[in-house]
Amino acid sequence: MSVAEIMQSPAYRKIVEVLEADHDRTVADIVALTEIPAPPFGEGPKGAHYLEMLRAHGLEDVELDGIGNAMGLRRGAGNGPLIVVAAHLDTVFPAGTVVTVRREGTKLFAPGVGDDTRSLAVLLAYIRALDAAGVRTSSDILFVGDVGEEGLGDLRGIRHLFTEGKYKDRIKAFFTVDSPDMEGLVVGGVGSKRYRATFRGPGGHSYGAFGLVSPAFAMAQAMLELSRVAVPGKPKTTFSASVFGGGTSVNSIPNEVWVEVDLRSEAPVELVRLEQRFLAILDQAVQAENHARSTEQGAITVEATLIGDRPAGSTAADSDIVKHSTAALEAHGFAVRHVASSTDANIPMSLGIPAVKIGSGGTGGRGHSLDEWIDVEQSNSVRGMAAGLTAILAVAGIAP
Amino acid sequence: MSVAEIMQSPAYRKIVEVLEADHDRTVADIVALTEIPAPPFGEGPKGAHYLEMLRAHGLEDVELDGIGNAMGLRRGAGNGPLIVVAAHLDTVFPAGTVVTVRREGTKLFAPGVGDDTRSLAVLLAYIRALDAAGVRTSSDILFVGDVGEEGLGDLRGIRHLFTEGKYKDRIKAFFTVDSPDMEGLVVGGVGSKRYRATFRGPGGHSYGAFGLVSPAFAMAQAMLELSRVAVPGKPKTTFSASVFGGGTSVNSIPNEVWVEVDLRSEAPVELVRLEQRFLAILDQAVQAENHARSTEQGAITVEATLIGDRPAGSTAADSDIVKHSTAALEAHGFAVRHVASSTDANIPMSLGIPAVKIGSGGTGGRGHSLDEWIDVEQSNSVRGMAAGLTAILAVAGIAP
Repeated sequence: MSVAEIMQSPAYRKIVEVLEADHDRTVADIVALTEIPAPPFGEGPKGAHYLEMLRAHGLEDVELDGIGNAMGLRRGAGNGPLIVVAAHLDTVFPAGTVVTVRREGTKLFAPGVGDDTRSLAVLLAYIRALDAAGVRTSSDILFVGDVGEEGLGDLRGIRHLFTEGKYKDRIKAFFTVDSPDMEGLVVGGVGSKRYRATFRGPGGHSYGAFGLVSPAFAMAQAMLELSRVAVPGKPKTTFSASVFGGGTSVNSIPNEVWVEVDLRSEAPVELVRLEQRFLAILDQAVQAENHARSTEQGAITVEATLIGDRPAGSTAADSDIVKHSTAALEAHGFAVRHVASSTDANIPMSLGIPAVKIGSGGTGGRGHSLDEWIDVEQSNSVRGMAAGLTAILAVAGIAP
Repeated sequence: MSVAEIMQSPAYRKIVEVLEADHDRTVADIVALTEIPAPPFGEGPKGAHYLEMLRAHGLEDVELDGIGNAMGLRRGAGNGPLIVVAAHLDTVFPAGTVVTVRREGTKLFAPGVGDDTRSLAVLLAYIRALDAAGVRTSSDILFVGDVGEEGLGDLRGIRHLFTEGKYKDRIKAFFTVDSPDMEGLVVGGVGSKRYRATFRGPGGHSYGAFGLVSPAFAMAQAMLELSRVAVPGKPKTTFSASVFGGGTSVNSIPNEVWVEVDLRSEAPVELVRLEQRFLAILDQAVQAENHARSTEQGAITVEATLIGDRPAGSTAADSDIVKHSTAALEAHGFAVRHVASSTDANIPMSLGIPAVKIGSGGTGGRGHSLDEWIDVEQSNSVRGMAAGLTAILAVAGIAP
């Protein structure tokens, strides 16, 4: 169904009217959901709450699946494929992070407010708008609040949906609604490799055993070398030394320290190159430390454990989902760019199932930082939401 | 007063006789005191109990001072200086550690039994022996069970005694009796500075915000530079990068990472030099990172928090306290070595007040471990105790 046909329909006009009319409720939902902490592997309470919201919106087969995804079906006319519209429950922020929302005018500040909590509320707004407009889609639409998108979650929620869940063989298209930005339509899945590098050595008293090799210095050298790796800007390729830990006590040479590293690239070949360079850097840093200080009580070793592995993939530019999404976004005034990123869409893309990531509308910034914010100014917010729903309807079709 | 004069006196013979005669009581005191837990910053109950023991031994001005040291004065002839004889109340073991003493023959096993609980009991045995022998010293002797010797206690008990306590301007010599070993006479105080260096930055998404400055890379550079600092082997000077932490998630450029660092030297001038170099390294590493990547969302900063500060110092080899202590220990058959360590004696040494650490006698091992033990076999135990008291009397003088 073309974007033009949808936008000329009375249903579309009603949808926009409803998105506007209950925008305050959508904002209230964003705040309420943001204030339920959802650290990695701690999405339970937010998932349970979202499950009840899906149920209250009248979906069918509302359930928490085996991995913790909260989902429910909005049945269509029964003659189309099953389409998934998902947003992720988890945030990057560890347990204990203050997630209270601060409001300044139309701006909301809180960790996770834009990535990806706004989208969860937007999915609910979509259901209300479709119902109010009396829209029956051709396809069934499965709405999902999924777990494990961030970090060490390693896309486990959507991976489960596509490889083990009860709908796994029926899904013909996948939208993930993730973060406010509407212009970057994600049609490529950036692959990533994540490692925990654990450096070990004999350890000892900081004064009495001074002169022995230290895993801390091997780690320092490795991370400094990583910081100096020249990566291409295009295909975009990145690295980050992210989380640190280890050590015995302030007055001990540590026997173990560790760091978690994130490596990414749009291009599989560049990701392999970066990964190989990283692993070589680890070994070189260990050798350098073993030559810089005494190994009389034992030498430094390093163990690199793969803790995340997101497949790269892409959806063809001439696929229906990319064509419809591009048209829908452009028709709402967005200057669409086709980009690659690492999102829940990586999983279907890697399986050859058409998938895109679209935005949730409005604007925002500073994702993954404690200063994260979104702007829920109504006209811009609704314009983004309407664009997203138009893309979904173009793929799902409206039954006569 | 010479060691030879003391050891030829009738008083000395009586002292040894009493140390032998009530050795069982000394052992009973060791057991009773060991079984009162005294974790860092939790010395209160042990201090209160020790206070009553000092009072029962007839000392004057028995009191708990403002920081928790339990102490009492044994008045001398009134024409000598004030001498302090101290042992520390605290152990390294956290609250909840089982401190029940297990006895096998002459061996006692328990956390803290040798470091430094035996010494607390030995101080009481000294008072009983001096009283029984009718010894009036030339100097007043202040007996102290002090707090905060271990770890983050940072010598706060003895620091208070010398900088704020009511005797602070009267103390002319200081003995700390610490652990069984009699051969290592501590005449040098290894100084230490301990820092937590916290690197902060804007943080952000590991892929989306790639190119922003990272506190992880500033920390890596700083620790690598620290590893390359050339420190003298004599006076022994050391550094350690010890405990690491921080980071938001594997897929985030961290907004905060930290490392704890231990710096030590036998020589105050070298410790100051190392500390200044360390602080300069922190700033240089931050500047380097701020020039290596984008500061458009904010720059890297570093905060260096002093979490431990033990002054270095030493007592001259030709000082009375070192000469008398050496002679007293050798006269009792111990092969004395002059060594440097980090003990309560650091404080007076750093203030130019003559100070040594002597042993409490007997033998022992596995200090700072749960397997800590001492051997209270009587002849060896009393030999060490007599040697220590001889050193104290040589400095205090016996009034005619």
